Amino acid sequence: MLLPMSPTSSMFLLGETREHPMHVGGLQLFQPPDGADALDVRAMFEAAVADGDVAPLFSKRARRALTTFGQWGWEPDRSFDLEHHVRFNALPRPGRVLELLALCSRLHSSLLDRHRPLWEMHLIEGLEDGRYATYFKVHHSMVDGVSALRLMQRMLSEDPDERHMPAPWALRSPAPRRADGVDVAQLPGALARGALELAGATPAILRLLNRSLSGHDEVVAAAPKSMFNVPITGARRFAGQSWSIDRIRRISKAGEATLNDTVLAMCSGALRSYLLELGALPDVPLIAMVPVSLHTSESSAEGDGGGNAIGAVLCNLGTHLDDAGERLRTVHASMQRGKESLQGMSQLQILAVSAVAMSPVVLEWLLRAHGRMRPVFNLIISNVPGPHSQLYWNGARLDGVYPLSVPIDGQALNITCTSYADELAFGLTGCRRTVPHLQRLLTFLDDELAALERATGVA
Amino acid sequence: MLLPMSPTSSMFLLGETREHPMHVGGLQLFQPPDGADALDVRAMFEAAVADGDVAPLFSKRARRALTTFGQWGWEPDRSFDLEHHVRFNALPRPGRVLELLALCSRLHSSLLDRHRPLWEMHLIEGLEDGRYATYFKVHHSMVDGVSALRLMQRMLSEDPDERHMPAPWALRSPAPRRADGVDVAQLPGALARGALELAGATPAILRLLNRSLSGHDEVVAAAPKSMFNVPITGARRFAGQSWSIDRIRRISKAGEATLNDTVLAMCSGALRSYLLELGALPDVPLIAMVPVSLHTSESSAEGDGGGNAIGAVLCNLGTHLDDAGERLRTVHASMQRGKESLQGMSQLQILAVSAVAMSPVVLEWLLRAHGRMRPVFNLIISNVPGPHSQLYWNGARLDGVYPLSVPIDGQALNITCTSYADELAFGLTGCRRTVPHLQRLLTFLDDELAALERATGVA
Repeated sequence: MLLPMSPTSSMFLLGETREHPMHVGGLQLFQPPDGADALDVRAMFEAAVADGDVAPLFSKRARRALTTFGQWGWEPDRSFDLEHHVRFNALPRPGRVLELLALCSRLHSSLLDRHRPLWEMHLIEGLEDGRYATYFKVHHSMVDGVSALRLMQRMLSEDPDERHMPAPWALRSPAPRRADGVDVAQLPGALARGALELAGATPAILRLLNRSLSGHDEVVAAAPKSMFNVPITGARRFAGQSWSIDRIRRISKAGEATLNDTVLAMCSGALRSYLLELGALPDVPLIAMVPVSLHTSESSAEGDGGGNAIGAVLCNLGTHLDDAGERLRTVHASMQRGKESLQGMSQLQILAVSAVAMSPVVLEWLLRAHGRMRPVFNLIISNVPGPHSQLYWNGARLDGVYPLSVPIDGQALNITCTSYADELAFGLTGCRRTVPHLQRLLTFLDDELAALERATGVA
Repeated sequence: MLLPMSPTSSMFLLGETREHPMHVGGLQLFQPPDGADALDVRAMFEAAVADGDVAPLFSKRARRALTTFGQWGWEPDRSFDLEHHVRFNALPRPGRVLELLALCSRLHSSLLDRHRPLWEMHLIEGLEDGRYATYFKVHHSMVDGVSALRLMQRMLSEDPDERHMPAPWALRSPAPRRADGVDVAQLPGALARGALELAGATPAILRLLNRSLSGHDEVVAAAPKSMFNVPITGARRFAGQSWSIDRIRRISKAGEATLNDTVLAMCSGALRSYLLELGALPDVPLIAMVPVSLHTSESSAEGDGGGNAIGAVLCNLGTHLDDAGERLRTVHASMQRGKESLQGMSQLQILAVSAVAMSPVVLEWLLRAHGRMRPVFNLIISNVPGPHSQLYWNGARLDGVYPLSVPIDGQALNITCTSYADELAFGLTGCRRTVPHLQRLLTFLDDELAALERATGVA
């Protein structure tokens, strides 16, 4: 018997093609416990595979049946095959972060097998620094990016001495909720119907969406065409790096901005340098769509874990300005106006905006269905709060966690940040063909952090 | 401007889905030159990547254009990205053949990026025995399996001291021909039209095909339903192993059979044991489709390299018999009758049979289009002649080569053999879900070789 699937989840199955895999991913780095090495961490995962235990969430598969008139639903996979899902990988020498990112780019490019539960866990050995890595890949129809990160965190403990902890696929605690704290499948009411209407792509909703997103700022109505806003191909490029939250916080304080403003300003400066180098910087500023919390304006940036980011703001990134301090002020002012505008929205407007924030694929459909070629925004920059404390899995210390997101047609680059302990990780996921040399963006992010420190007088 | 693509090639693009990747592959093992190690072999490939040279065959991509009324064609990839195509991999410890086969199974499962030239070369380090491996993957629309193997061989030399040899993707010698020695793209005449008619799936051709394939033997009209003849999923399982050609030849001589008969008898016994273990052995014998040469009845088995295998014979494998010697006699008799029947065929019948031998996907379409559920045969067993001598690439000795083929709906297992120097390699490619524990078949092949030696009195 098929269990029902929410309309939002179905959309990710219906919208998927070989050019648009609809899975999200997370890269995690582990420091082996004292006296152990990377292969000991692997041995713990191997033991969990041999044990064979798997939670219902990870053993259900998606199926479209005649009995449900072609609607997608969930059913248990009766020939579940754990070894298909948990895979052992190794890095070619010298096993630097460069080789790790190359492997993750490739793993993130291939489609999940639709006949099976829609996830893969890749165990990665061979890092020259002695750490062990995992890359977790899960279909957007099962969980969204934020939930995937939280799911991974649920396997962890603050206690370095805790042992006998289950593998993530064997976790039996409640199913993860979507990023907005709302599991659409559980909602009989307004939100589910709203998502359905959006999926129907009625012109009324599109007009509402345009008004909601662009009403607050004259600049954002004019997002330029850019190299990121083109059809994409199937191969992905991924790059990730972390920076100290303290450094970002000091800039924010001195610049009278939020932590998220500073993150956006880092992206702005880095994108400017990247586009300048490629001779592709538009004259007018790039516009980012930034999911934000509707409850407190600061929480989504500060990583309190309770911020339900169901709104979205269009942010003028000020990429036309050549001064880092001016870019930060422009971003801050634009975000302020956007959040104020969001607070004045009706419930239905918020519904429309949040559906888009939840699933960019909806937006793609809306734009495509209405022949709108001009991008409403140039890229999505999300900042997802993560845990404050150091976390461990069977004594192995989680050393870093990087989100891999979903580029779509017209949105060839995605930037997702997540905080963990005292660091903020940037995950850049792009179409391999459209976005060359993605690692350069990491260098430019680093440069921009230093430039913002100089501009605000903290360094 | 698009260059024309042959109808046969187009079929492999049109027929491809995420469950049916239409690429073939080859696994090659290299022994590093004296005084060098696996990483030195890798360094030679790296140098070739850095060099950046690529032949036109490997830099053209497939495209369907409005100007050609939606027909597929070839065009140069103007943003060709060699690093996308040549990939560095490593095996997790301990780096046995087991880990190598697991990696190849996964690499063979994922789709090629259709926006780029349809090939990938995977360089694989980390084998515990000090060897270096490559897995080459190429779309069936570019070359067929046999041509892919020949292509790999063209990069090699009989001279262990030859150096400065180009990488396979930089080879500028004439484009490889299809398995039958006929490049359909070059053929303006009968064969191309024949393939077109087949693609049109007219009932007349199907009737002809049925008559051609099954007329020669009353038994083969009754291929049983088996676990291999079901719809398949996207994930693959691959296993491969080599045996001494001398051992197989001695059995053939003593049993008054051809070498190919003995290969088929090995498959028969191994399939019987495998199906018995799974409780899935049909009461009536399995039927294999076996591509054969029309020129000399022995050449395709002996690996003379000149045998143009454009015919196909349906072979009664005798899997219902529990004596190895009896199975060999049954296979031999069935192959004899099949080849005699083939010699009596009209040109048009041979055309129909050869089109199917060239591209099983044609058959799948024909059967599906006509609602025929009952399999005409249970699996394809090919034996592709390879080179007689030891071959080298820049001093690294080719130690083994294993073909990876294309399972399709209704044909979940494919066995392809290829000879190299004094060994015969078996490559088993199956749908991961449908064909469990494929490695067991290798064990059973080994058992059966010994059983045939006992049955024919050579051991």
